[in-house]
Amino acid sequence: MASLTGRDPSLLRRINSTVVLRALRGPDEPRALTLTELVHATGLSRPTVEGVVEGLAEAGLVEEAAEEPGEGRGTARRGRPARRFRFRAEAGHVLGLEIGPHRVAAVVSDLTGHITGTLAREVAETASADERLERARATVADLLRRTDVSRDTLRAVGATTPGIVEADGTVRLGTALPGWTGLPLGERLRRSFRCPVLVENDANAGVLAEHWKGAARGCDDVVMVLAGLSPGAGSLIGGRLHRGFGGAAGEIGALHLLGREATPERLLSTTDEPLHPLDEAAVAQVFALARAGDEHAGRAMDRFIQRLVHDVAALVLALDPELVVVGGWASGLDGVLDPLRAELERYCLRAPRVTLSRLGEAAAATGAVRLALDHVEKELFTVEGDTAD
Amino acid sequence: MASLTGRDPSLLRRINSTVVLRALRGPDEPRALTLTELVHATGLSRPTVEGVVEGLAEAGLVEEAAEEPGEGRGTARRGRPARRFRFRAEAGHVLGLEIGPHRVAAVVSDLTGHITGTLAREVAETASADERLERARATVADLLRRTDVSRDTLRAVGATTPGIVEADGTVRLGTALPGWTGLPLGERLRRSFRCPVLVENDANAGVLAEHWKGAARGCDDVVMVLAGLSPGAGSLIGGRLHRGFGGAAGEIGALHLLGREATPERLLSTTDEPLHPLDEAAVAQVFALARAGDEHAGRAMDRFIQRLVHDVAALVLALDPELVVVGGWASGLDGVLDPLRAELERYCLRAPRVTLSRLGEAAAATGAVRLALDHVEKELFTVEGDTAD
Repeated sequence: MASLTGRDPSLLRRINSTVVLRALRGPDEPRALTLTELVHATGLSRPTVEGVVEGLAEAGLVEEAAEEPGEGRGTARRGRPARRFRFRAEAGHVLGLEIGPHRVAAVVSDLTGHITGTLAREVAETASADERLERARATVADLLRRTDVSRDTLRAVGATTPGIVEADGTVRLGTALPGWTGLPLGERLRRSFRCPVLVENDANAGVLAEHWKGAARGCDDVVMVLAGLSPGAGSLIGGRLHRGFGGAAGEIGALHLLGREATPERLLSTTDEPLHPLDEAAVAQVFALARAGDEHAGRAMDRFIQRLVHDVAALVLALDPELVVVGGWASGLDGVLDPLRAELERYCLRAPRVTLSRLGEAAAATGAVRLALDHVEKELFTVEGDTAD
Repeated sequence: MASLTGRDPSLLRRINSTVVLRALRGPDEPRALTLTELVHATGLSRPTVEGVVEGLAEAGLVEEAAEEPGEGRGTARRGRPARRFRFRAEAGHVLGLEIGPHRVAAVVSDLTGHITGTLAREVAETASADERLERARATVADLLRRTDVSRDTLRAVGATTPGIVEADGTVRLGTALPGWTGLPLGERLRRSFRCPVLVENDANAGVLAEHWKGAARGCDDVVMVLAGLSPGAGSLIGGRLHRGFGGAAGEIGALHLLGREATPERLLSTTDEPLHPLDEAAVAQVFALARAGDEHAGRAMDRFIQRLVHDVAALVLALDPELVVVGGWASGLDGVLDPLRAELERYCLRAPRVTLSRLGEAAAATGAVRLALDHVEKELFTVEGDTAD
């Protein structure tokens, strides 16, 4: 009956290592456990646990915990207390990097995802690709210096940016940033790091972040809409990121063009002149005027909401998520929730819950950290040199 | 190292049984194999194969094949030739059932999915739920009689119908059929069968069918659009049906209402009167007139295509599939492919391939067979009385 296991012992080793590491990291906080406790927590045999702990210690991921002061934990101890083992969360770091039209942001965390530092810098909308990358590099260097994290301890870097991103990190299409379409972003970033660099679309990173630490915790079927003049969306289906066959899933921005409606810049304009494509300040001003009772601004906002509803409805009808998270702009979006809910109730056969992003501006960079952590966790569990599938 | 396997021996038995059955069913056609050949084909040990074959024989799923006439297969035989075993595809049957607005159709297949009979009957669009169900039951009874299949040999029934279908087979919303919304369709059908009855939306069944035997073979990221006056869609993501959180994924019909466009019945009308909501004959006539050069009909068809493009674009932008399969109407759809392709190329960041359904009218019922087969295959692999997860 053990015939299947005989076919791939490394797979079993990996699974067993995963089980032990997960037990040590605990459901919420890392904890130090004895071998006996690990046997109970994992359901593995004692010899297996011993072997796995030894391998993890050699890899620098587990160490014996400092002895706890005698706390009388209810178990009788004879002679020397049992050794406890802990996950060395400080054995490495991961970096999350957001490269956007107006800013770059970097976030560093330990191996449990505990964020130990963050730094954001503005960047000119008109900056060339080289200038923008240089700005990102400088921000990373500053952050590592300030948090006293050595670049050598980075185990993975997650990077996120608007546009369609291919599996190798090349930007297939990125109209929001000058010189971005065709940029081998992954390759360019890899020159600065010795660890793997993963690149992902910003809305995709955003939904990972909201699922991890934000408004979508505990919810596995989520669409996150980055509302903006050209909206994008990221989706989780059954807890997994849905990238689409070509990485373009959720790039819903073109849909309204089909309806031959006005461009969003015109929708939101209170004059005859369209707004600047990326002018968030102007948008915030329109929203503020509308709230203050300005008639032109109110109509402009109505038009904008109508379009947002249409885009979100398209996503909801296609995907049928449990939850829609609306993010993207720092302010003004709270006014769109109620009309959005009402319209979705009206047109969707099964309307999802609708909520605001909890992470706001931090969503993309936080999602980039999650991306890097996912990669590291997959790697960590390969403790004896065999490659993960 | 065998600690994990010790935790769930039934899982291993099931996996091993699966592996053996798959080997006997072969990649295309069932084949009779010796124990030695099964050991080679599965990578399992000989004692494991022997145990599994014995269990499968007890369950009536495998039997010793009739001896082949001496063919000199290249292997030296001493004394009695080695016994060969075959999968008893005739050990059971599955039934696929389509209950639509105009017709009911039933399809019966053996356990390898080989279709052995099919029967379709018209049903009045205005028929009540009871009348429609009675029509379906009579069609099934006729088909079983004609194909000489005993009802007792049915291992599962798949049923498919328009609308949102809940996991237990209740129609949550089904506007195309009178009395359909709220109907406990699964429960009603189960009265006629002793085996499990699965119920699925028709577009979802359609995409399963096209993936199994139609235009989407070998393609795991597919959207199938049932074009019609109220279009619906079914999607495969990574080879798996995407039902959505509430089973409503792909119910894209309401989208155009948001754009405040005219209803499709008006779009296609060549007079001031809208078409009847489900009048396919009238639609076919408009398409025929358009092809013959009628100006009014040409404009009507353009409007219809524009709307179809919009709906398909919404699905494509949200899901980013590799392939879009267009089906639903028996005739006239070939004219929509080229404009659909052209518009998708124009608006989608990454346009998918677009093709016509290969199964046509048979798609839904064929998908219902696939649904039942999937269920049976999952069950078959539980050979020793343990329940599948």
